Amino acid sequence: MSEHEILIQRAYELAIAAVENGNHPFGALLASGPTRQDIVIESMNTVHTNNDVTRHAEMELLRKASKQLGAEKMAELTLYTSTEPCAMCTGAIYWSTVSRVVFGCSAALLGEIAGDSFTIPCREIIARGERDIEVVGPILESQGAAVHKSYW
Amino acid sequence: MSEHEILIQRAYELAIAAVENGNHPFGALLASGPTRQDIVIESMNTVHTNNDVTRHAEMELLRKASKQLGAEKMAELTLYTSTEPCAMCTGAIYWSTVSRVVFGCSAALLGEIAGDSFTIPCREIIARGERDIEVVGPILESQGAAVHKSYW
Repeated sequence: MSEHEILIQRAYELAIAAVENGNHPFGALLASGPTRQDIVIESMNTVHTNNDVTRHAEMELLRKASKQLGAEKMAELTLYTSTEPCAMCTGAIYWSTVSRVVFGCSAALLGEIAGDSFTIPCREIIARGERDIEVVGPILESQGAAVHKSYW
Repeated sequence: MSEHEILIQRAYELAIAAVENGNHPFGALLASGPTRQDIVIESMNTVHTNNDVTRHAEMELLRKASKQLGAEKMAELTLYTSTEPCAMCTGAIYWSTVSRVVFGCSAALLGEIAGDSFTIPCREIIARGERDIEVVGPILESQGAAVHKSYW
């Protein structure tokens, strides 16, 4: 397994759990290293159960982390997400102190599967700002595509 | 006064109130028409007081509206915001049912004043999706610039 595959698989597990809870198939987590033992906070999409369109997995994660960890600690962590973050979530990542994002399924492939066109690559949005955020992905994309194909 | 100036002035009042509360100078509201009597929900930036980087005025507004009004009602309303929405907030607007956005100060002018480069025009982000969202602005931009200049 490559460095990031273990935690992207965990993000896919969270995406599946989100569906089991009645929400869209997206999960995210913050970790201090590449193993399950390094996970600090996990989150899932809760758009349906909270009746709130802003509750994507990454937003839930950053909101919890802002309160529970603070900016200094967040800057040391990597954000893993099952699918490349959308414009809203990429913007939120930019405003946070997170300095590395690892994603599973690409936005482009999600768009093909879900039939949605609002799939701007997150690197393109991040490149418009001054903050240096490393982006890694896609990782294990066929696994992520399978999660989406069984939902949309 | 032009059609939208009354409610953009109200958004500027909310931006000033946000600063008085210890937050950044941004305010937003949803309205069913162009007068103060048409205002349905108002919001302010609460990033500092909630210790949460995602709490921009538009995010606060959409979260409240999602819960209190629902998608069908939101689709009939116009979102007024003191400053052109950032990538995060534009993404959230896209995921909501809001079909018209009116902004006061442009993101470009905010960027000049606040010294920030992460100021992608919201029309550029919206144009990447399929949903038809009308964008109007800037409106009374010199008043908005004055609010920002006294803060940043």
